[in-house]
Order: sequence, then structure tokens, then C-alpha cells
Amino acid sequence: MEQLHLNKKPKVVIIGAGFGGLWAARTLANQPVDVTVVDRNNYHTFLALLYQVAAAELDAEDIAYPVRSVFWKIPNIQFLLAHARRIDRQNRRIETDIATLDYDYLIVGTGSVTSTFDIPGVAGHAFFLKTLEEAVALKNHIICCFEEASRETDADKRKALLTFVIVGGGATGVEYSGALAELISGPLVKDYPTIDFSEVMIILLEAAEYLVAPMPENIRDYTVRQLSDMGVHVRLNKAVAEVTPEKAILKNGETILTHTVVWTAGVRGEDLPADSGIPVGHDGRVPLRASLQIMNDDHIYVIGDLAAIKEDQRVLPMVAQVAIQSGVKASQNVVRQIAGQAPEPFRYADRGSMIAIGRKAAGVAIGKRTFKGFIAWIMWLIIHLFNLIGFRNRIMVLTNWAWDYLLYERAVRYVFPSKTPAGSHVRSCADSTTKLK
Amino acid sequence: MEQLHLNKKPKVVIIGAGFGGLWAARTLANQPVDVTVVDRNNYHTFLALLYQVAAAELDAEDIAYPVRSVFWKIPNIQFLLAHARRIDRQNRRIETDIATLDYDYLIVGTGSVTSTFDIPGVAGHAFFLKTLEEAVALKNHIICCFEEASRETDADKRKALLTFVIVGGGATGVEYSGALAELISGPLVKDYPTIDFSEVMIILLEAAEYLVAPMPENIRDYTVRQLSDMGVHVRLNKAVAEVTPEKAILKNGETILTHTVVWTAGVRGEDLPADSGIPVGHDGRVPLRASLQIMNDDHIYVIGDLAAIKEDQRVLPMVAQVAIQSGVKASQNVVRQIAGQAPEPFRYADRGSMIAIGRKAAGVAIGKRTFKGFIAWIMWLIIHLFNLIGFRNRIMVLTNWAWDYLLYERAVRYVFPSKTPAGSHVRSCADSTTKLK
Repeated sequence: MEQLHLNKKPKVVIIGAGFGGLWAARTLANQPVDVTVVDRNNYHTFLALLYQVAAAELDAEDIAYPVRSVFWKIPNIQFLLAHARRIDRQNRRIETDIATLDYDYLIVGTGSVTSTFDIPGVAGHAFFLKTLEEAVALKNHIICCFEEASRETDADKRKALLTFVIVGGGATGVEYSGALAELISGPLVKDYPTIDFSEVMIILLEAAEYLVAPMPENIRDYTVRQLSDMGVHVRLNKAVAEVTPEKAILKNGETILTHTVVWTAGVRGEDLPADSGIPVGHDGRVPLRASLQIMNDDHIYVIGDLAAIKEDQRVLPMVAQVAIQSGVKASQNVVRQIAGQAPEPFRYADRGSMIAIGRKAAGVAIGKRTFKGFIAWIMWLIIHLFNLIGFRNRIMVLTNWAWDYLLYERAVRYVFPSKTPAGSHVRSCADSTTKLK
Repeated sequence: MEQLHLNKKPKVVIIGAGFGGLWAARTLANQPVDVTVVDRNNYHTFLALLYQVAAAELDAEDIAYPVRSVFWKIPNIQFLLAHARRIDRQNRRIETDIATLDYDYLIVGTGSVTSTFDIPGVAGHAFFLKTLEEAVALKNHIICCFEEASRETDADKRKALLTFVIVGGGATGVEYSGALAELISGPLVKDYPTIDFSEVMIILLEAAEYLVAPMPENIRDYTVRQLSDMGVHVRLNKAVAEVTPEKAILKNGETILTHTVVWTAGVRGEDLPADSGIPVGHDGRVPLRASLQIMNDDHIYVIGDLAAIKEDQRVLPMVAQVAIQSGVKASQNVVRQIAGQAPEPFRYADRGSMIAIGRKAAGVAIGKRTFKGFIAWIMWLIIHLFNLIGFRNRIMVLTNWAWDYLLYERAVRYVFPSKTPAGSHVRSCADSTTKLK
């Protein structure tokens, strides 16, 4: 049933408070629309630094920012803490777990989720690195492995506890491998004087023949070299066939005894569009018109990771810059539509890409130029600090980093209780029983 | 069966890594003993600031410090992350959830736990404020109450969501009432522009006729005045008869509709001694000899909150200074025993007491002198910072406080998932369903 909006401002609903959603909302500030931003968390997560939370380098709070603060001085934007379940396109309505919301224009930025490619055991036994809860659960697990290893007398069991397998040689897998190596060789060596650290092994598995494939060749090579120097065993052309609680089995039949498989090998579009009958590609992302509208509905825009934006024969990557730029453009197009103008096509301005391998080591590619090593790490640091929302977060993160950098101690390695994330098991530090002498 | 320790250093086990346990351990550094510190958490919690975590003023990590770091350079001290279940005095052995530990000397500093006095509903429906998990759960719940209230159209239900009852006018109850009032009148007013804040009510209930009874009268009066000025309804001589999920019922028959009862009205000694057949008082604390040894066992010392130390016709209060001083003395006495000397009696050096009511408002009593207001708050700040273990924690806490103080924003009010603490319910932010227009 079509609703009448006499004398009412058009309603814009934005689902997702990631980079795309927040920038879409900001673009609509003080425009003649009523905006509701819906997210299942009351905080924005700075996902680019999630791996540092999982490596006990940053606190969870350092990379989160309360969404309501973003809109303090913007009267036409409200926030709803809710989980959007379904888009009812016929009635232009969003069903959430706590309320139903009418919209005139909808901007969907629910992002991406981990894809297991239905490989047996991954959903049940691997750790993911896509949400703050998952990062905290992984950190807790790593510490618990060391706690258990410190009292485990059986050498094979101890080695399995001290073997950490990261699957996926993209940015997340590479960055986490490096950060984990530094966590272990730094504070954990001091925390566990009774552990023989030659028994510790970090293995990075990549199914293809390159790490960080989209980067220029010299940075790909530098990344492998740098990780190897840090003690990470980089193994290319190695695909995982199955994961169990105590081992990873490779496609070539090899078995690695481990309690820790970190799965960063795949992402796909989040489920909301597919669950709402909106056509999606094989990777769950939504094919769009150049205007960022979905194919057969002028009132729905998709932005960020969830958007399959084709440009120059490629689909744009799932990165913050695409999310920000598409969020801004979607809102601009909504404003144009309301003013009776035609939406404009989106055009991505590529600002380059970067990867941090460890302290003092990064790779940056801007256009045809590349930077490696310390200078690249400084660029990485500045750009990430700049992009953190909120002055306080920048201070806290910088303080944490400075502490980490100057004193080589990571002070946040507590095992706080955390909710069990779907698709991963949380190891209790008291899983096994041993007799101490 | 008595064990022989030929050519072996005596084994000292310290249970609990609170102030008492850590200072006991430090006192034994590089002494001719093998020390094992046992705690169920791998971090020390600075309990004096727990209420600030529950008021979204500090991050949980700010007041926690990894125990293993404390012992980095002390070869004769090791740490075991375990939950001590029972002391087997006959065999001089500790049973934990993961291992059994032999001891020659035992120092027990497992502290205090919340006491509900078996008042109906308190264990099941009230929030506690004794552990980091409980503080985080309470913070999440407060934010969720505001989230729900922001979309609740029934006035009575909304008022119940916005009524916060703190039970107990001791230091924790007073400090939390003040911090909660400031959280609400500061950032939450800005976060929830649609809420009518005249509907918000904070009620502090105290069964006796004074707040902070052990403080001098002028500070007690100042505390009531200050809290009232901040909008807290201080109600003296009001005892709670029952708590349900939706109300607090007082002994006088009055009913307060609320979803939030914070129970700070009672503490008692932790269960380990009682569970091990060691005689305890009605409040669970262990009666001791002047040497801090238990009555009929020369090999067991009790320190901190768990110790009922009688001095000058009073039992020493459960405060950090008593824990620290008793921890040091217990270890000194262990060293004396090993050297064949008699243990010495413990004597408490009272350094005064303090209470923080809010930003810029505190009360301090040192000997016969008292301080109130801003000067007292500065003293409180310096002493608390000084006592935080670890240089990093001090920087982070100071940064957080400075941020809070200068900009009147509390940036850590995220609803992160947390484990449900025993004895309290964690409100999901999606408990009720409403229809938004």
C-alpha cells in the first residue's frame, strides 16, 4: 500500500554505518530529507586495523567510534540500533529485528562477510577476522594457546598449540601474519620464559602463486621477503581442503597439526539483498547501474563492499575509498532525484593502495609509483590515523602505537570474556588438565 | 603424605593477583623460594576504578594489567592461569581447574565477592560491580536502556527504562551514582535528542542513615549535597526487600519501576577458604593471628579483603592499602619462617581514605584532616594514577580522563558483546519490538 507524504520530507534509510554509510549520511546532512541510519552495532568499526586488535596491539575501543556522536549536530539524521532483516521493495519498507521502517530512498551498505567456499570445517573450526568480536576472540585464543603450551609436557601437543596457520595471502592475511609474528617475538617471549620458542611456527597459506596479488610485483616480492625475515613460513600454491579442531588438511594431502586456523581467504557480499530477492552475483555482490542504483528499482542504491561496480573491465575492490566515494555519490544522486534531476554515473578516483607487513615495514602503490620499507610505513601510519574517525581515537591509537614502537611491549593482551562468534570456537584457557610439579 | 624437599627451595603459592597477591609476590622476588602466583584472570584489575568502566568513562583495558609482565625480570616467580578450587591442607596442595600444585607456604588473597544477603531476586536480576565483566555488562545495559527508551512510545515503560537504582551508599554506590549522572547529563543527552531527560531518574538507596559511613561527618554531608546537586535522588534508611526484572520493592512496601538495579550493598569473603574447611566468620572472612597466619596452620597466610584483621577493636576495611601492606607482611613472615625466625605481628599504617563523587568533586580524609571539592579531586586523581600498575595504563587513563574532562564527552560507550555474568541478566538492545513511523 503506497503511503502519501503530504508536506513531508522524503525518507532516506541508510543500512550500515561503515565508511560507505557514514559518508552517505554526512552528504545528506541538512538536505531536505529525513535520514535514518540503521546498524546492528552502535559503533563504527575501523576495519583496516582489525588485525591489530587480534594481535593484541590495539584495544577494541581504539578502532570503534560511537555512531550517534557522528550525528550530534545534524538534526535531520537519526540512528536506529537494529538488525535489518529484509527489504520489502513492494511496500518500500525495511523489516528489522525491532521495528519496521518506511523509506522513499534506500542506500544499502551492509558490506561483506567471510566466505568459506563451503570448505569442510572452516565455518565450525576456523577463526575469522571480519568483526570486532571475532578479532577479540582470536586474540584470546592465541594467548590461551600459549598459556596451555606453557604447561603442556607432551611435545607434539605443545607444537600443535604453538602452530598458527593463516589462510589467505591478501591484505588481511599478510598484515595479521606480520603482526602475530611481532606479538610472539616481542612480549610473548618475555611472558612465557618456560616455552621453547623454536617450537612456535606461523604458516601463511595462499592458494595462488602470489601474496597481495593486486599490488605491483616489487611490493609482492618485498612482502614475501619481509614476512620470511620475520619468521613467517610463506607457502604459495597451497589450498586448504578441510579444517578440524586439531588440524588443517591441504589439498595436496599434507596435514598440519594446529589448533589455530585463521581464515582470511574469502569474502562475499552480505546477505540482505539476496534475502530480499534482489539479484546478486556469485559472490553475493549486487550488480548496479553506473548511477549505483540497482537494476530494476530507482529507489535503491548499493554502496561499498556490497556493490559490484564495474569500471574499465574490472569490478572495484572492497576497500574503504570505494565505500566512501560510492556513499557520497549515492547520496548526491538521491538529492538529484528529489530535485527532479537524473542521477549521475559514479566514477572512482583511485588514491592507491597499501599494505603493512610489520613495524617499520609497509608497501604503498600510488599510480605508477611504489614505496617500500620505513617511508612506506610512515605513509601508512599517517593515512590510517587520518582516516580514524574522532580525535580521541587518533590520540589513543597513536599512544598505543608509540608505546608499542618505543618499548616493544604490547600491553593489551588480556583474555577478556567475549561472546562466541558464529563460526568459530573459543578456546577456554582451561581446556586441558595437567599435573604441575 | 609428607613430601621431602632435599636441596629444593621452598615452594610458595600465592592465590590471587590483586593488590595483596602482587605485593606479596614482589616481596618474594629473588628470595630463596620458588613462587607460583595463581589467578583465574591473566590480568590484574584496578578495582578502585571499576565504576568508571561501568559508566563508560574508561576502557576495560585501562584498568587491567597483564600479570605476566609484572614478573618479566623475576626468575623465581611463575604465573599459572587457573581457578583455585580447594586447599588440601593435609597434603599441602592446591586443586585448580587445570592442575594440582604443591606448596610449603600458602598466601591466600582471593578477595571479596558480592553478597546478596539472600534477598529475593538480587542474585538473578541485579547488576553487580565487582569484576571487569560485570562492569562491561552494566555499561552495555545502561546504553541499551537508552536505545530502547528512544523508541518506546509507552510513557510508563519509558520511565522504567530510564530509572536507575543503585543500592548501597558505600564508596562504590556513591562513586557509580555520580559517574552515571555525569554520563547521562553529558554525552547521553547529546546522543538521544528524542528523549525527554526529565524522565531520567537516578536513585541511590542506603539502608542506614549515612552515605560513606566510615568517612568524617563533614565529608558524609558534602557527599549527599554533591550527589543531590548532580540530580541523584539520595534516599537514606531505605532497604530493599526484593528485586524483579522490572522493579525494586523496598522494605516499606514502596515499589520502584526499573530495569536497572545495581547492587553494591554488600561484600563477603571469597569462597575458597570456606570450601576448604578453613573456619571463616559470618561474612566469609578468615580470622587470623596477628602474624596473618590462620589459626591452626602455620603454613597458610591470608591477606587483603579475605583477611579479617582485628586491630584496635575494629576489623580492618577492605581497601587496597590493607591488601598491599598485609601482602608484604605475609611474605616477610614466610621468609622469616624459612630462616627459622618467628613471624612478626602485622600493624596497619592508615594512609587515609577518599571518595570521588564526580568530576572536580571528591572527599579526602587523612588522619584528622579532611579535604573537599576540587583540591580533593586532584589528590584523588594523583593517588589513583600513581597506584595504577604500569606506565602505559597511566598514560591511557590520563588521556581518557583529560579527554573526558576537557571535552565532556565519553568516547567508550559501545555495546560490545560480553559474557553474561553469573547473577545478572544482560539486556539485549533488541528486547522489545516497536513500530517506527
